[in-house]
Amino acid sequence: MSTEPLAASTHEFDRQTAVRPLPGTAPDAPAGRYAAALTGGWSVGGGVNGGFQLGVVGAAVRAHLPAHSDPVSISAHYLSAGTDGPAEVEVDLERVGRLATVRARLMQGGATRIAAIGTFGDLAAAHEAAAGDERLTATPPDLPAPERCPGPEHTPPQMLEIAPMMERFEMRFDPACAGFAVGAPSGQGRLSAWFRFRDGREPDTLSLLTALDVLPPVTFDLGRPGWAPTLSLTAHVRRRPAPGWLRITQATRHLAGGMFEEDCEVWDADDHLVAQARQLALVPR
Amino acid sequence: MSTEPLAASTHEFDRQTAVRPLPGTAPDAPAGRYAAALTGGWSVGGGVNGGFQLGVVGAAVRAHLPAHSDPVSISAHYLSAGTDGPAEVEVDLERVGRLATVRARLMQGGATRIAAIGTFGDLAAAHEAAAGDERLTATPPDLPAPERCPGPEHTPPQMLEIAPMMERFEMRFDPACAGFAVGAPSGQGRLSAWFRFRDGREPDTLSLLTALDVLPPVTFDLGRPGWAPTLSLTAHVRRRPAPGWLRITQATRHLAGGMFEEDCEVWDADDHLVAQARQLALVPR
Repeated sequence: MSTEPLAASTHEFDRQTAVRPLPGTAPDAPAGRYAAALTGGWSVGGGVNGGFQLGVVGAAVRAHLPAHSDPVSISAHYLSAGTDGPAEVEVDLERVGRLATVRARLMQGGATRIAAIGTFGDLAAAHEAAAGDERLTATPPDLPAPERCPGPEHTPPQMLEIAPMMERFEMRFDPACAGFAVGAPSGQGRLSAWFRFRDGREPDTLSLLTALDVLPPVTFDLGRPGWAPTLSLTAHVRRRPAPGWLRITQATRHLAGGMFEEDCEVWDADDHLVAQARQLALVPR
Repeated sequence: MSTEPLAASTHEFDRQTAVRPLPGTAPDAPAGRYAAALTGGWSVGGGVNGGFQLGVVGAAVRAHLPAHSDPVSISAHYLSAGTDGPAEVEVDLERVGRLATVRARLMQGGATRIAAIGTFGDLAAAHEAAAGDERLTATPPDLPAPERCPGPEHTPPQMLEIAPMMERFEMRFDPACAGFAVGAPSGQGRLSAWFRFRDGREPDTLSLLTALDVLPPVTFDLGRPGWAPTLSLTAHVRRRPAPGWLRITQATRHLAGGMFEEDCEVWDADDHLVAQARQLALVPR
C-alpha cells in the first residue's frame, strides 16, 4: 500500500475506509470534506473495487452525520476508475431530520470517481419502532455449507494477480454456479457465495455497501468473463446484520443494448435480508 | 392549473413537462437552470406524483444535453412534497462522453423537491451497436386483454378526488390484483396494469420515467392503503418503447423497519422490457 492508514483499528477494513476531517470541517455542518484513501489492496482488473469505494463514501458520510450512521439508500454513479492513493470525499447536506440526505463525491487528484446521493438514518431505531411489522417473501440463496463450497484454496494464482481484493475476504462459491472458474459457466445468469472478512471483522451496515459489489460480474456465469464497468449502483441497507457469514447472491434478467442490470441481495446469519442493490453495468467487450 | 404552459404541443404530457432555459443557460454548458412547472393535474394525495416530477427533471436534462436524450439511469431522492406551481431544475454536468452524467435538482420556492443523479445517452445507438446481443429471462406480466381489465369506468369518484392524476391516463388493472379497489387485496404484494395516456401520446424514454411510478403503492395489495412516501427511486430505461399500450408491474418482497422496496417493470407492446425501477418507500401509517 502506498497510502498511510488514517486511523488505527484492529481490523483492516476499518483502517482502509477510515477518513479524517479536513481543516474547517465539523460534523453536521452543511458541508464537509474528508481525507480518505483508496487502497490497491482492493483493486481488481486495474481499478479499485466499486463496492469498496462506496464503503469509503459511506464512512465519510457516517463521520459527518454521527446520529445517522446507517446508509439506508445510496445511489452512486461511477465516473472514472479509482486508483491506489489518496482521495477526498465531499459531503453536502440536502436535508436532515429523522433521515438525512446528502450528496457526496469521491475525488482523486481533481477527478471525480463517484457522484452519489445517499439517505442515512438509524436502522436499529427504525426496526425498534416497527417491531413485529415485517413481511418477507424473498428467500435466501440455497447454499451448501461453507466447507462444501469452493473457496480461496481453489482460487487460481492468476486470479489473485488480477484481483488482489480476493485476499481481503473469504468467498466460497455455490458449486451450482462456480463453473465459471473452470470455463464451465452455468448460463443461468446467477452467482451466489458465502462471504466474510479474512481477519474476522464482523459485518455492519458500512461493510454491507462493499459486500453488495464484491462478487464477480454476473456475466461470468453467462460465459462472458471480463471487466463489466458499473455505470450506477443503488444500495438499500435494510437492517444491521448479525455477526457471522453473509450469503450474497446476484442475478441478471436482462442484457441488451450493451448493458445489463445486476440485482444483488445480502443475507445474514440470522436469515435476514440485510441489503439489496441494483446496478447497471456495461457488457464486457 | 395555476401555471402557464411553457411550450405548445399537441400532447398534454409534453406541455406539462416542458422547460425553458433561464437567462444565461446554454445547452451543454457545465451548468444550466431551467424554468419548469409542477401541475396539480398530476397530484395524488396532496402532492404531485413523484414519477411526473422525475419526468420534469428528465425533460430539463434532455433540454440541456440534446445529444443525450435518453435517461439510461437516474436516481432520485425525494426531499419534500411537490405542489402545483412553478419550479426550477438545476443541471450540473459531471461527465460528458458517449454517456453523460449530471446532477440535477428540482426546486420550488427555494425548497428542494428532488435531488438526482442521472446518466443519459442514446439508447437507439446503443441498441444498434449491440444488435443481436440480447438475453432476456424476465417475463412480461400475464394480463388479460385491456378490455377485460377494470379501468377508468370503475374508478370511484372519491379516488379521482384524491388522485386527479388518474385523469391523465387510462390504467387497466390486472383483475388478479384489482381487489384492493373494493377492499379485497390479493395479499401477494404485486400490482399490474395496462397504461397509456388518455390523449394518445405515445410512450418515449421520458414518459417511461413517469410510468415507473404511476401505479398505486404496492402496499395497497397488502391491505395497507395510504400514502407511501418515496425515499428514493432509481430508474433504468433499457430501450426506446414501441407505440401502444404499456404493461406495468410492480412487487415488493420485503417490508421491514417501516420501509419496503418496490420493484417496477415496464413492458412495451413489442414485449420488450423497456424500463425498470426500484424504489425504497415508507410503509403507510
